[in-house]
Amino acid sequence: MSTKKLRIIPLGGMGEVGRNMTVLEYDQNILVVDCGLMFPENDMLGVDIVIPNTAYLVEHKDWLRGFVITHGHEDHIGALPYVLPQVSAPIYATRLTRGLIEVKLKDHKLLEKVELHTVQPGEKVALGPFNVEFFRVSHSIPDAVGIAVDTPVGLVVHTGEYKFDYTPVHGSPTDVQRLASYGARGVLALLSDSTNAERPGSTPSERVVSESFDFVFSQAKGRVIVSTFASNISRIQQVIDSAVKQGRRVGVVGRSMVDNVRMAADLGYLNIPPGVLLPVNELEKLLLHQVTIVCTGTQGEPTSALVRMANQEHRQVNIMAGDTVVLSATPIPGNEELVARTLNNLFRLGAKVFYHRLLPVHVSGHASQEEQKLMITLTRPKFFVPIQGEYRHLVLHSELAQQLGIPAENVFVIENGQVLELDENSGTIIRDGVPGGYVFVDGLGVGDVGAVVLRDRHHLSQDGFLIAIVALNRETGELAVDPELISRGFVYVRDAEELLAQARQQVVKALEKQASAAHSFGFEERIKEVLTEFLYQQTKRRPMILPVVMQV
Amino acid sequence: MSTKKLRIIPLGGMGEVGRNMTVLEYDQNILVVDCGLMFPENDMLGVDIVIPNTAYLVEHKDWLRGFVITHGHEDHIGALPYVLPQVSAPIYATRLTRGLIEVKLKDHKLLEKVELHTVQPGEKVALGPFNVEFFRVSHSIPDAVGIAVDTPVGLVVHTGEYKFDYTPVHGSPTDVQRLASYGARGVLALLSDSTNAERPGSTPSERVVSESFDFVFSQAKGRVIVSTFASNISRIQQVIDSAVKQGRRVGVVGRSMVDNVRMAADLGYLNIPPGVLLPVNELEKLLLHQVTIVCTGTQGEPTSALVRMANQEHRQVNIMAGDTVVLSATPIPGNEELVARTLNNLFRLGAKVFYHRLLPVHVSGHASQEEQKLMITLTRPKFFVPIQGEYRHLVLHSELAQQLGIPAENVFVIENGQVLELDENSGTIIRDGVPGGYVFVDGLGVGDVGAVVLRDRHHLSQDGFLIAIVALNRETGELAVDPELISRGFVYVRDAEELLAQARQQVVKALEKQASAAHSFGFEERIKEVLTEFLYQQTKRRPMILPVVMQV
Repeated sequence: MSTKKLRIIPLGGMGEVGRNMTVLEYDQNILVVDCGLMFPENDMLGVDIVIPNTAYLVEHKDWLRGFVITHGHEDHIGALPYVLPQVSAPIYATRLTRGLIEVKLKDHKLLEKVELHTVQPGEKVALGPFNVEFFRVSHSIPDAVGIAVDTPVGLVVHTGEYKFDYTPVHGSPTDVQRLASYGARGVLALLSDSTNAERPGSTPSERVVSESFDFVFSQAKGRVIVSTFASNISRIQQVIDSAVKQGRRVGVVGRSMVDNVRMAADLGYLNIPPGVLLPVNELEKLLLHQVTIVCTGTQGEPTSALVRMANQEHRQVNIMAGDTVVLSATPIPGNEELVARTLNNLFRLGAKVFYHRLLPVHVSGHASQEEQKLMITLTRPKFFVPIQGEYRHLVLHSELAQQLGIPAENVFVIENGQVLELDENSGTIIRDGVPGGYVFVDGLGVGDVGAVVLRDRHHLSQDGFLIAIVALNRETGELAVDPELISRGFVYVRDAEELLAQARQQVVKALEKQASAAHSFGFEERIKEVLTEFLYQQTKRRPMILPVVMQV
Repeated sequence: MSTKKLRIIPLGGMGEVGRNMTVLEYDQNILVVDCGLMFPENDMLGVDIVIPNTAYLVEHKDWLRGFVITHGHEDHIGALPYVLPQVSAPIYATRLTRGLIEVKLKDHKLLEKVELHTVQPGEKVALGPFNVEFFRVSHSIPDAVGIAVDTPVGLVVHTGEYKFDYTPVHGSPTDVQRLASYGARGVLALLSDSTNAERPGSTPSERVVSESFDFVFSQAKGRVIVSTFASNISRIQQVIDSAVKQGRRVGVVGRSMVDNVRMAADLGYLNIPPGVLLPVNELEKLLLHQVTIVCTGTQGEPTSALVRMANQEHRQVNIMAGDTVVLSATPIPGNEELVARTLNNLFRLGAKVFYHRLLPVHVSGHASQEEQKLMITLTRPKFFVPIQGEYRHLVLHSELAQQLGIPAENVFVIENGQVLELDENSGTIIRDGVPGGYVFVDGLGVGDVGAVVLRDRHHLSQDGFLIAIVALNRETGELAVDPELISRGFVYVRDAEELLAQARQQVVKALEKQASAAHSFGFEERIKEVLTEFLYQQTKRRPMILPVVMQV
């Protein structure tokens, strides 16, 4: 038994959606589980993606023994291209997950620089003091695993993302035998998926979706267009299966989806009878009822294939009356408006549309409350740490654990950047642990957009700006030319000539009052004050006001 | 029988959420049903509210015979203060609806200028060629009505917003007898609420919420804080009822809610035993388990009482561990992120939180599919016009009507600004009818923010701006001083000094190339081009670039 402590440090996925990353640390050894991205919330203006804060990892580069990846969704692998250039370590993943990582690394020209290892469920890997065993879980993507990590302090089980789907589309169900055996051996800590902690009962099997697809395909008289996530290989298989039953061919639209389908087919994760998969341009030669199209766009993303099709802006396929369109996903919180807009546009074009409110064309990939209870009951952990969920999900999940008899002092709700220190008997949370905040990626910039830039973007988005340029003669201190006002996003400039002329007068007046000072010191403050007050009084708006005083 | 046609023109509420307004027109006579606002979507940046487009009404002011208001929710009365100054006509509403309108008009100092009439369900009002009868419907606010309008072409039934709640909190259920009598007489056209056309079955009664409240109040050991809409008088009654059962007092927080509660109590729409309602500052003298607070904030609005309480920024009440908090509403699409953030903050503070995912603390006020079918079956209309819903809801509702045997050619899905012309036998849609687009209110401006300003705000929100100020000597054409660059929302200026210095060099170089021209003509274009390219290549961002060339 060890006198040193095991440290569990979430750098993502705790108290928020996505960006999953959990650090296990023992005696200057670090194991990282997952490395995902998060899609920006609506008020993270101009941000492309959000990744975990790796300051702590960078600081302790030498301690890093490896990355272990539970499955191939973006929120578990998407930050790898941004994190790997900062800290390097071997990556361990199952075959399909590795395939998806490779597609991504190739895109970023990083594939040659990274050490990748393929693992199988049941396989064990020793990484420093950590003995990692992978176990099968069912999720909405094939080849998902959880991990059981033997540490000097005890056995830690990290579920990855799972549900107890007894009839999954691909492979075997979640390995209840293995989980029970961990419980029999004794689990120090269970880190378990909290996403659906609000949902009573059990999550339906993926098979429900197949039944819906069969219904949709059987009633469709024209083309069937199914949108899903590019990484949702199981869902793509289900589309292919239903298409084949109805004698349809399948075309894949969109580069990310084409890449993933090719890779998954090569690796044997997609079962496609010969002749079924066709290039999109060859679909045009078929009758409409022979055509199936798979594409992205379930979240109403403006650049996705489905949205461009719905806006009649797609290069190859545009929606027309008689098409049947399926959105095989639920909106991620924050995307509801974009999804609603896409649905409305599809209806306007006369498509027959199926989505989650009308038919179970999607089921969640996450365990609901009864399954969460089963996970705890199988593994019988001493300590319980809810992971992967917004803060309220973590709390609700921790309440479930307590209902099952785990004492409150053994249940730890921690957030990103906090550190949980465990020994065999007890745990302590260090609230002010390590940097865990958001890191924004915007264009080429990783981490350079922060609170100040976002606050300015927010201000500009609400009321625009007005810049007052004043050129003073450097000898006389008098106006060299009339002040110039530049404004965007505040008022429609062409219709606001009088307002702007009056504002210019205000600037001139403000200068006259201070002209005696013969210096521009204080001019900028004075101009800003006068314009702010004048414009608010006239419009009840508060544009960003920037005075520029130049000596010429 | 008439040879002229009845025109039905939606100016809001058709194909979108809220902003309800329907025009009935016959022979230069106009009746307006409802005058509501819509809350801006996430990409309507800086917009305060959205109101119906009244260009057509303004153009035909003299034809206007009156406004008829179905109930007192914002999306049915909220645009009155903006529309009434443009077109004036008497307003007809039931007692509580009138009370809510008065609170609003008083706020805008318009109360003295408007002619208001109180009507009762069953009452008839003649407005030009329209004989309007009001009938009782149950909705999530008391005193809601639908209207039956006798026109020279036939009887038009407009449901307002309704459900068939047989045990409403206030008053009587939807008047099925009256609806059946219209059906017996013969209904030309039914205009029916489409909001819940996606929902199978029937909407639960408001009574379900009372049961949830009783449960919540009985388990609470500390204060109970219930948030709802300020206009949701029934819900406030339910809070008071549950509080009284548990011997609690009630305080109301927030000006709009205080105003509405006072008005509703004065009119007899709130039944409050003496001594139960207390000013908030007197609640401090009570024990925690004697306290109930009602406030706004169900949508996570940053300035609402609940959000300020959850951020520990409220002047009077802040959330603490042991509080029980109820969000008695579902998120309006687009508000999910703000609601989730509020919930997470409440959990972080240790409050016990109840919301729609955990307990039925809210039910919809709108009819589901089986009720929509009942409405059609009772009224047996010749023509069917789905109203009040996003486009897909209108289509789904129209499909229901066809299932019930109304021929497809008698079902009309129309959008804002389109005109439906009806005679006794048939209808025609004029697609390019009247102006129906959004009118944005921003500060004091009504309609001045349009596509250009919004596009600029969007651009600024994504990548900020960079302004290059170049002062040229008017005689020599040479730079009078170094070019000045001003940027916000693009990069964090303090960390980007080198980038900006290089950008300045690019400007100087661009000028040198053209200096021979001795004129500034074309300089601005050239500067913009050079900076756009340079900055994109360096950052993969596209700030708004504005060159300003001054002759000094």
